[in-house]
Amino acid sequence: MEFRILDKIDSPADLKSLTIRQLETLCEEIRQYMIECCATNPGHLGASLGSVELAVALHYVFNTPEDKIVWDVGHQAYAHKIITGRREAFRLNRTKDGLSGFPKMSESPYDSFGVGHASTSVSAALGLATAARLQGKGTKVVAVLGDGAFSGGLAYEGMNNAGASGTDLLVVLNDNQIAIDKNVGAMHNYLLRLSTSTTYNRVKNKVWDALGANWLRRHIQKVVKSSKNFFFKHSTIFSGLGFRYFGIIDGNNISELVEKLRRVKDLKGPKLLHISTVKGKGYKPAEENQSVFHAPGKFDIETGERIRTEGSPLKYQNIFGRTVVRLAEKDSRIVGITPAMLSGGQLSDMMKAFPERTFDVGIAEEHAVTFAAGLAANSMLPFCNVYSSFLQRGFDQIIHDVALQNLKVIFTIDRAGLVGEDGATHQGAFDLAYLRFIPNITEMAPINEIEMQDMIYSATLDQYTGPITIRYPRGNCLGLTLPDEFKSIEKGKAERLSRGSDIAVLSIGTIGNQVIKAIEMLGQDSSKVSHYNMRFLRPLDTEAVKEAASGHKVIITVEDGCVIGGLYGAVCEALANEGTSCRIFGMGIPDKFIEQGTVPEQLKECGIDAESICRAMKYFF
Amino acid sequence: MEFRILDKIDSPADLKSLTIRQLETLCEEIRQYMIECCATNPGHLGASLGSVELAVALHYVFNTPEDKIVWDVGHQAYAHKIITGRREAFRLNRTKDGLSGFPKMSESPYDSFGVGHASTSVSAALGLATAARLQGKGTKVVAVLGDGAFSGGLAYEGMNNAGASGTDLLVVLNDNQIAIDKNVGAMHNYLLRLSTSTTYNRVKNKVWDALGANWLRRHIQKVVKSSKNFFFKHSTIFSGLGFRYFGIIDGNNISELVEKLRRVKDLKGPKLLHISTVKGKGYKPAEENQSVFHAPGKFDIETGERIRTEGSPLKYQNIFGRTVVRLAEKDSRIVGITPAMLSGGQLSDMMKAFPERTFDVGIAEEHAVTFAAGLAANSMLPFCNVYSSFLQRGFDQIIHDVALQNLKVIFTIDRAGLVGEDGATHQGAFDLAYLRFIPNITEMAPINEIEMQDMIYSATLDQYTGPITIRYPRGNCLGLTLPDEFKSIEKGKAERLSRGSDIAVLSIGTIGNQVIKAIEMLGQDSSKVSHYNMRFLRPLDTEAVKEAASGHKVIITVEDGCVIGGLYGAVCEALANEGTSCRIFGMGIPDKFIEQGTVPEQLKECGIDAESICRAMKYFF
Repeated sequence: MEFRILDKIDSPADLKSLTIRQLETLCEEIRQYMIECCATNPGHLGASLGSVELAVALHYVFNTPEDKIVWDVGHQAYAHKIITGRREAFRLNRTKDGLSGFPKMSESPYDSFGVGHASTSVSAALGLATAARLQGKGTKVVAVLGDGAFSGGLAYEGMNNAGASGTDLLVVLNDNQIAIDKNVGAMHNYLLRLSTSTTYNRVKNKVWDALGANWLRRHIQKVVKSSKNFFFKHSTIFSGLGFRYFGIIDGNNISELVEKLRRVKDLKGPKLLHISTVKGKGYKPAEENQSVFHAPGKFDIETGERIRTEGSPLKYQNIFGRTVVRLAEKDSRIVGITPAMLSGGQLSDMMKAFPERTFDVGIAEEHAVTFAAGLAANSMLPFCNVYSSFLQRGFDQIIHDVALQNLKVIFTIDRAGLVGEDGATHQGAFDLAYLRFIPNITEMAPINEIEMQDMIYSATLDQYTGPITIRYPRGNCLGLTLPDEFKSIEKGKAERLSRGSDIAVLSIGTIGNQVIKAIEMLGQDSSKVSHYNMRFLRPLDTEAVKEAASGHKVIITVEDGCVIGGLYGAVCEALANEGTSCRIFGMGIPDKFIEQGTVPEQLKECGIDAESICRAMKYFF
Repeated sequence: MEFRILDKIDSPADLKSLTIRQLETLCEEIRQYMIECCATNPGHLGASLGSVELAVALHYVFNTPEDKIVWDVGHQAYAHKIITGRREAFRLNRTKDGLSGFPKMSESPYDSFGVGHASTSVSAALGLATAARLQGKGTKVVAVLGDGAFSGGLAYEGMNNAGASGTDLLVVLNDNQIAIDKNVGAMHNYLLRLSTSTTYNRVKNKVWDALGANWLRRHIQKVVKSSKNFFFKHSTIFSGLGFRYFGIIDGNNISELVEKLRRVKDLKGPKLLHISTVKGKGYKPAEENQSVFHAPGKFDIETGERIRTEGSPLKYQNIFGRTVVRLAEKDSRIVGITPAMLSGGQLSDMMKAFPERTFDVGIAEEHAVTFAAGLAANSMLPFCNVYSSFLQRGFDQIIHDVALQNLKVIFTIDRAGLVGEDGATHQGAFDLAYLRFIPNITEMAPINEIEMQDMIYSATLDQYTGPITIRYPRGNCLGLTLPDEFKSIEKGKAERLSRGSDIAVLSIGTIGNQVIKAIEMLGQDSSKVSHYNMRFLRPLDTEAVKEAASGHKVIITVEDGCVIGGLYGAVCEALANEGTSCRIFGMGIPDKFIEQGTVPEQLKECGIDAESICRAMKYFF
């Protein structure tokens, strides 16, 4: 595929001589290229399609990389990558040794700040801008923030400080009225009202409510386009927070964007430019199905149909969704909470079955945890479903609001362990370690889908008190036949899966299946290996650990979490004063951040794939 | 001291028959009692003096404990405690086995949710209210939030969700225009504008700017009092967030408060009542010196003078303050950041010397960390000064924004270890453990003030790259003479303080002084003990650890952090595969939350005071 203009853009400098008409063509070419690449090499297509014009306009108007752009989350930054010297490299987006799916400082001087988790951009940009001011430089700094990320408290903290500081800073609020799922919260409603304020009087509430969001967006854009009055200042929340507010303008109109950015660029102080874009813009299937095309996987460009493997087994996410629904049917205390991972985590099942007992709180992990604590303090039984790396945001709330009060909140920790293509920012590497020292917590991880549903069920029983965490990875289960009946799992009890003579392997969670494979690879020597599925990191089954220590010359711990402070740490601590001669060898995610790649590639990189585990066992024979 | 009305108030039920005039008297009596108690048994006096009327009015109007009040932070809740059956117990506020300084569910049914860290109340109250709604109960729920806590992102996340949910919930915004230090941020400015909006046109900007905040507050109250128009609804940020806004009213006028609370009590949906109170109200020294009387320590009631011990040594906080100023004088890259702990952490020294390079970002730990990362990403060298338990709020930002990008941010972690009277919510128990598994971090802790200034200095040197943490406790240094010259400390290098035959004690941080004392207590037997001051938890000096393991039969680790996952964990992990016969015994904060008491009491409770360490050593001889 050849592109008339795009093929000549090797850096933003190459944009400067283009006309607006040429920029429009360029945007079309970028879109085509992006769709083509993502159809076969999956990525976060939707948001990036919506912000092609923004990326081009910013680099056209500002003097990057001296001027600095901070993209919040980074899902919207593909066009930015493509026009900043990474056009060809983008074909290997999100692959091992290829591009990161997110802006990353070490990848390009045009990535002024690394991102991945939401709502960081204003705080980071304020840091960059303050530094420039102190250094007496005229650097311009722009933060690009989606409306989804605006539900996060950190974004508010950043705005609150930036607004009061008077620092020269431009925040572009890229408003597409959707996060991954439908956006939620009062701020969302507020932005919607703000977006429609020009047309508000003309279009009756009831009419556009009935017509729905898609129609509304298109309508707004039409009105905005035809309006001569591009800038109107409101008494908005943003002006309340000390920002000069400009908007709302059509963010998919490059000519308008360039003109407005030029106008606000040199204004002093904190400014917010509110733009409206369409997630999935320019690709019909993506515009029509925005949640799916947030990250569609492989798809057929012509039809927009996603290419799915036939008869793939259930995912662990499905196990969570169906189990929580079954339990909620019988127990009216059960409520479900997710911070903006409704479909990703499959709490959507519960939302369908029990909408009044299911809460998508937006990107707001801190609130998700404290809200759950409040529910538990008033006799409910909350499931708080959060990805491992995002739960880091609720760390203090777990300690202070849940564990300290010994409230029974069940945290189902999704995307635990290695997550594949999302890479370093999204690895669920730390939860085993960061929960292990918190008093009152029970910490468990199932080896497969049957144990998973049993653990979720068991957690609801009275023998389980206080906070409970159940971690499981992204992706496919083993494909086992699921029994209808739930079985109760005794708290703090490990299970010995096999018994051998020399080495005891202690594993926790689904990584145990790599151990099973590794033992099979040993052939005859498999009789030398015992395998314990620990199930619980906390309380640790110290009896099982001591049994392992006394019956074998080496213990190998295997976990898909950081090898520091997790299962390895727990086992070492348990045996340190036992006077055992048994050595302990820890296998897990090493002491570094693991970049993007496939999960098998990452397992291998960390040395916790079956082959590596097999090799380690042989070493100790 | 006898009180005519207060002495008969054993529960809120006893309030119900009182007249407004009698409530006024009661408030005066509560104030007197509170001042009397706090003069000899120190506590958080200022905020609680300001909210006496609020506590009385809420319990008068609402049907507690069925109706639920959530006090944010809890510094303002002394009157609440006193009238809910804890009048006599309040004499032992913040003492071992006495009352907690904060509302606490296990202490009283009137404490509907435990607090301590800021900004949690709206989220927790929304949880309580949602539970009540699902259970079909008519429970009323009130969150009382100070304007200081409103700078925290969690408060915004809570408001954003509460506002959109339509849940029946009353938020009382208790606005005294001050946190611990002067409140900051755009929201603060906004509230100030809102407070003055009735008088805005009458009083010229310049005039009241010149007259200062204290005068202003009094003026506002007078105007509000004389106004017939108590409720005026604004198009406020709060209405933008889905709340009905009522205010601003005089929160130190019980008659007005009762009337307004009665009016808003039964209104449906999310409501915000904005009240203005005076921090320190009714006690002149406290009104005039609000920062000091936030938590004044012991004081003379007549004169308001604080009772200080003569010639007390410098505090670790002073070492931080003066060292960072000395370094900043020579290095213009250095900036200082604190989330609302300016005077508590002594960054106030730098604020005086370099106001333009010092940032108090308000209660906003997440922002503090990401803002620091942004500054570091643009060539500055930020010191981020945060209390250990509050830094839990910035956990994800440390991982995602700082460590992942290997940015050089120096975290000076104050209030590390046991904190005494503030108790469970404020213990700096976890930082050693929660930082140890984060790649790229250097984690250190000085044994005394000389080492502390050397560590702060060394951290700025080029041999130290990436994130660096330096932890130290609250309170007095040893009183050593401080050399003028800073000395560079080699990264990852422990120091052997004494050499013995049988036991090696490995300690980190100032708890090492308890070890030194314990060894002295051994008398002749002290020759059996080696003592290593580890200095670094990460990188751990594994050479020193191996030396200790090979030369002694037992290693005892001593730390004033949770014994799980910290120094003990690190040493166990380091030796687990070494085939050593040396046993390892861990001493630290046990696996539970440590309640209020004096630091010596807490050290004893945790078994890490000199006596306990001495006993442990003898056990192993």
